[in-house]
Amino acid sequence: MREVFQQELREVQERLVEIADLVAVSIDNATRAFSHSDVSLAETVIADDDKIDLAAAELDELAINILARQQPVARDLRIVVSALRISASLERMGDMSEHIAQLARYRFPDKVVPKSLRPIFTEMGQLDVEIARKLVELLKTEDVAIAEQIRNEDDRIDALHLSVFDKVLGETWKGQAVDTVDATLASRYHERFADHAVSIAKKVQYLATGDWVPVDA
Amino acid sequence: MREVFQQELREVQERLVEIADLVAVSIDNATRAFSHSDVSLAETVIADDDKIDLAAAELDELAINILARQQPVARDLRIVVSALRISASLERMGDMSEHIAQLARYRFPDKVVPKSLRPIFTEMGQLDVEIARKLVELLKTEDVAIAEQIRNEDDRIDALHLSVFDKVLGETWKGQAVDTVDATLASRYHERFADHAVSIAKKVQYLATGDWVPVDA
Repeated sequence: MREVFQQELREVQERLVEIADLVAVSIDNATRAFSHSDVSLAETVIADDDKIDLAAAELDELAINILARQQPVARDLRIVVSALRISASLERMGDMSEHIAQLARYRFPDKVVPKSLRPIFTEMGQLDVEIARKLVELLKTEDVAIAEQIRNEDDRIDALHLSVFDKVLGETWKGQAVDTVDATLASRYHERFADHAVSIAKKVQYLATGDWVPVDA
Repeated sequence: MREVFQQELREVQERLVEIADLVAVSIDNATRAFSHSDVSLAETVIADDDKIDLAAAELDELAINILARQQPVARDLRIVVSALRISASLERMGDMSEHIAQLARYRFPDKVVPKSLRPIFTEMGQLDVEIARKLVELLKTEDVAIAEQIRNEDDRIDALHLSVFDKVLGETWKGQAVDTVDATLASRYHERFADHAVSIAKKVQYLATGDWVPVDA
């Protein structure tokens, strides 16, 4: 029984890695669609979000099935419950990619943000992609050093998020209302994407160190 | 054992109702702070969010404890897993109240949105409060008719959310960039608040009807 259970936990882990992989592709495509006003790439991201949703729902069914059959306790139980939460966060990260892609599609053939903001969004996008790739590695290896890197990159994204508002509310801002709306939403989506990654990283980190993390951390 | 388990499920349900009650108070205070630029009320909302977070974390511990001791299967297992998800959504609803309150505090003594948008935000706020109160009733009674009402009110909020963008992007909009940013964020927070309520309502509805709902529904 114990061996079967360990095998099932590996299956859960592999599925989480697969979903994180889909999310990494999704944010990479979304941020490229956003920077280059690539409407067909944006549509790919939007269509692919269903795959992430489905994979997350299937993982949840597997996890619930394991709870029912294996009746794990203690740390094993927390691993399975964490998997459910990590899957929910990954699913939301996919939604953020989709929202970023939708902004690119709505404004096509225009670019989503005016020139003065593009360097900030390019950097935010690159950081989100990097965070997503590190999340794949973290879920694969459970190397807590990666969790720390993700937190640091999230701090950088938070700073960039604030700098978007500094620009938009500054005296030199010449954008129209539509630019202001888009910059506000796009910045929020980029920032939320990273927040979810941090939330996942904390769960992996606490599981690895034996502590537990409350739901809102 | 069975009787103890039923009693524990009731305890879970009562705790969810309590958290939903806290959320209902929080959104009521937040939307009033937002409409009337009441900075001290805004600060109450911000301080009270910790109570919601704590109550959600405690409920999660109880649910995990029940899983470990009672090892429920089938529908009973899904009820406990649903409780974990409902608690996560309630916790996020509390965050949305807090964000709305923060906007009121940042802009004090100014009001957050210009006069032309206030009727829309007043209605959105009232709908969010109503939805939160209905959620309390739904969790208390499991009356699926209430779930349907929550979905309908969410549709109304989605329409108001779009109308905010119509106003802000329309030709008569005279707001500054700061007004545009605030309207965008405030509208998004009001809309997400209701989304989480719908997600909870679906879980209760499906549990009551015996079906299961995937994580992203």
